[in-house]
Amino acid sequence: MKIGLDIMGGDFAPEANVSGAILANKELPQDTSIVLFGDQDVVREKLVELGGNPDDFEIVHAPDVITMHDHPTRAIPQKPNSTISKGFDLLASGEIQAFASTGNTGAMLVGAIYKVNAVPGIIRPCITSTIPNIKGGNSLILDVGANADCKPDVLYQFAILGSMYAKEVYGIENPKVGLLNIGEEETKGNLLTQSAFKLMQDTTDFNFTGNIEGRDIFTGKVDVIVCDGFTGNVVLKQAEGLFGLMQKRGLRDEYFDRFNYENYGGTPILGVNSNVIIGHGISNDIAVKNMLLHSYDVTKSKLTDKIKEAIN
Amino acid sequence: MKIGLDIMGGDFAPEANVSGAILANKELPQDTSIVLFGDQDVVREKLVELGGNPDDFEIVHAPDVITMHDHPTRAIPQKPNSTISKGFDLLASGEIQAFASTGNTGAMLVGAIYKVNAVPGIIRPCITSTIPNIKGGNSLILDVGANADCKPDVLYQFAILGSMYAKEVYGIENPKVGLLNIGEEETKGNLLTQSAFKLMQDTTDFNFTGNIEGRDIFTGKVDVIVCDGFTGNVVLKQAEGLFGLMQKRGLRDEYFDRFNYENYGGTPILGVNSNVIIGHGISNDIAVKNMLLHSYDVTKSKLTDKIKEAIN
Repeated sequence: MKIGLDIMGGDFAPEANVSGAILANKELPQDTSIVLFGDQDVVREKLVELGGNPDDFEIVHAPDVITMHDHPTRAIPQKPNSTISKGFDLLASGEIQAFASTGNTGAMLVGAIYKVNAVPGIIRPCITSTIPNIKGGNSLILDVGANADCKPDVLYQFAILGSMYAKEVYGIENPKVGLLNIGEEETKGNLLTQSAFKLMQDTTDFNFTGNIEGRDIFTGKVDVIVCDGFTGNVVLKQAEGLFGLMQKRGLRDEYFDRFNYENYGGTPILGVNSNVIIGHGISNDIAVKNMLLHSYDVTKSKLTDKIKEAIN
Repeated sequence: MKIGLDIMGGDFAPEANVSGAILANKELPQDTSIVLFGDQDVVREKLVELGGNPDDFEIVHAPDVITMHDHPTRAIPQKPNSTISKGFDLLASGEIQAFASTGNTGAMLVGAIYKVNAVPGIIRPCITSTIPNIKGGNSLILDVGANADCKPDVLYQFAILGSMYAKEVYGIENPKVGLLNIGEEETKGNLLTQSAFKLMQDTTDFNFTGNIEGRDIFTGKVDVIVCDGFTGNVVLKQAEGLFGLMQKRGLRDEYFDRFNYENYGGTPILGVNSNVIIGHGISNDIAVKNMLLHSYDVTKSKLTDKIKEAIN
């Protein structure tokens, strides 16, 4: 397996990425290699500087960079020699099996949708986030920002995608799916969740357990929390904000330490024809390492192939 | 001033309400009295049992109760002798100047809208919540559940209502208003927030400072956070859930202690023709006391009259 990494993504590029790749390379199986996308001189120089062996990595020369200020939909055609554009070229041609970046999320989404394409039948690919729950496990929430406006049938597909991710990558059998809502009763909600509830209530496509409220996001009441990308993004950033305040104020314990983004590193874009993993822009080397290990787990699980089978 | 209190609201009725009324009565000015709505025998008995003096209170006999299981829109006409129905009767006739309850929020909303009516020009009355911010003050978020689906002009009015509440009751001059969104740039958001941003960006009706993200809810970046009632309800319950987990795990400090709902007690329904204050169903006596003191502050501020002037 070959996993591509954009060395220019995130706030601490290229060091955090190169360093993370060196760390991940020590933990990945022998038959898996990391392909670094960046200016080849910079990559080699940084590898040596940070104690890595250039012979352990493949390097794809990509001297240009899509920054956070580039327009997501225009960036890829405008910068064909950027790390992200080159990454998607090799992902689309099958030369690499996964591509990971902590860079411009919008450009990653556009690349995923226009260069490797949505799985036929998937209306809207989406992004998940992993939420540590108080029971000791993880719950998934999706969508967390790729689709600000959703229709009920899109939420229905998110439930399928989230269930498959929970099962195939996190090993959760028959994952419980909850619809994020403003009351537990089926009549509660906005027009979107009321309609989505009706679509979901008698389904056999996934294990729907009903509505959940904001207070249940962290309790592990369900394994997969389904919502539109606007709500999910607000939830995620609110949790990050509160966790950040707790850290600043020295309030920590075993449970809340699990909120540290470093532990998760990255999350796949679900519903596209290959393994695209995006990481947080503030990622350090540990987060990048974990993003690469998660890329391995996602690819190894053949989640993408299983989604294709399930949808068609 | 006369403030009405439903003694049958909430999980700990009637004790928590009667006890809260006794506590509030000691702190309210001489010219203000509390009117208790409930079965008169129960009210008198509980007053004596809990150490209050029945002569300090007016009692309105209301032997029936709207429970949490009653349908909000049908409960008031179906139960004319309930505490909530009687409360709204006296509020509508001007015999009391405020009415407070920790009972069925839906019934309170329906009573507010159909018995005292929305202020002419207000499209949708709404509910706020007070969020302690890290700067030491409070931020308001609205709507938190009265209106799950909103149009952009409704969010615009929420900004006016929230600004006036922040100024008149919390004494915040020229309160900063932020639109809760999934990015700070004006192009970010769902269809609702993108349109609302356009309506707000050049306004002189309130001090609009732009979009804020989930991570800024607690930072005091703005004084008034505007969102639809679905998003606001999820935000509020998520914060309550996380605060509850922190409490259970013994993680506390001066800032997070301010999240205790007891401190706030209640919140007015904004945009109706009188002072209607709703409290949390889990309210204890301290929370009820603070709900009554807040009812006094809201009524004293003449917020309702000022909203009428501003809207017309």
